[in-house]
Amino acid sequence: MRASFSESSKVIEKVLGYSFRDPSLLEEALTHRSVAVGRRSYEVLEFLGDALINLFVVDLLLQNFPQSREGQLAIMKAFFVSEDFLSQLSQELGLESLIKMERRRKNISSSILADVFEALWGAIYMDTGRDLNTTRDLFFKNYGERILQVVKEGSYRKDYKTLLQELTQHLWKTRPTYRLIGTEGPHHNRIFEVECQVGSYRAVGKGKSKKEAEQESAKKLYELILSSEGSADQTCG
Amino acid sequence: MRASFSESSKVIEKVLGYSFRDPSLLEEALTHRSVAVGRRSYEVLEFLGDALINLFVVDLLLQNFPQSREGQLAIMKAFFVSEDFLSQLSQELGLESLIKMERRRKNISSSILADVFEALWGAIYMDTGRDLNTTRDLFFKNYGERILQVVKEGSYRKDYKTLLQELTQHLWKTRPTYRLIGTEGPHHNRIFEVECQVGSYRAVGKGKSKKEAEQESAKKLYELILSSEGSADQTCG
Repeated sequence: MRASFSESSKVIEKVLGYSFRDPSLLEEALTHRSVAVGRRSYEVLEFLGDALINLFVVDLLLQNFPQSREGQLAIMKAFFVSEDFLSQLSQELGLESLIKMERRRKNISSSILADVFEALWGAIYMDTGRDLNTTRDLFFKNYGERILQVVKEGSYRKDYKTLLQELTQHLWKTRPTYRLIGTEGPHHNRIFEVECQVGSYRAVGKGKSKKEAEQESAKKLYELILSSEGSADQTCG
Repeated sequence: MRASFSESSKVIEKVLGYSFRDPSLLEEALTHRSVAVGRRSYEVLEFLGDALINLFVVDLLLQNFPQSREGQLAIMKAFFVSEDFLSQLSQELGLESLIKMERRRKNISSSILADVFEALWGAIYMDTGRDLNTTRDLFFKNYGERILQVVKEGSYRKDYKTLLQELTQHLWKTRPTYRLIGTEGPHHNRIFEVECQVGSYRAVGKGKSKKEAEQESAKKLYELILSSEGSADQTCG
């Protein structure tokens, strides 16, 4: 097992273009608390990595979209620091097979995948002797193009409920609420109508499921807020 | 006006121990959108500064409390990146008198004070030519001791409703709810009883006002969660 970890970790180091001076940091980043008896699990490095990646993404976006408004930047950022995106990077890097956790847990959740990816960056920062510039440049070298490509394709605009919540949390530290306000049509072909509301903003969406109607209402409200935000001093919540 | 801004900004530069190469960045950091016609307001620099300060605080705490658990670190961090704390630093630095905004707005809110403090650090980072190490070291030099002193005194544990919310958002991405469950005593000496709940956790607090009872219930729930957190894989919300 030990040999295999060390070999696989070499693959990761090769992909990232970074060799750990202190391999125990990499090991800590990949150790789930279920097996961390008497040694450190990844939580603290994850806490650090979360703050690092958050900053690196903001910095990258600002460098490349200096004319964007803060609201737009916040939406992009929300996607790139999301569990969805980070767990994807984690998987691509092959971290899944390296995570040390209790064997009875068969499925490694995307939350854990994202956590260890963050922890990996916390570990790299520690390993460089706390050199922020070096760590940032390595992150950009590995993920800069990739992130900018996603922005270009617009594929960061995926899930409107998530986007809307990120936006309203960001603007007013509050969340939207959803309410089923009606259904129509026969049982096998029902149309759901959902109202989404936050502060003085509201929008109604329809769909073939409650979920679809919620997404539709979130999309409308999201666009409504984006188009009003900044034009007036709206307060809310 | 111009001369006075330039003079006052020199005072700030002296206090911080940093001279701007490009003073227009400092000016941008202090420009509210109410007067930002045809020029940039502080929002984008604030967005950057928020990510910077978040990371610097995490890094400082980790350096000084390497044995702390992640939950404890998260609570400390929540205080040091809060509007309360940052607006205080902003005021001490004398930023209030330098903010450019519409005159009709007489009271500069603590939210705006905190925003410009964040924007100031965004501006410094940009001004260094994006040198993260230099910006971090300057932040530590100015606020490192101060932050560690607050931790030592324990005075970051102030407002339990805020602390609890930060904790539950952090752990489970959810917020506690408060419910008035009873009052007792005569009108002039009423005791309020509030229940605070999140997921499967609940606690009841009493107080001479609803607010006091909420704080009491938040304190109890906060301590309850802290003592259970980590000992089991609690899920919630």
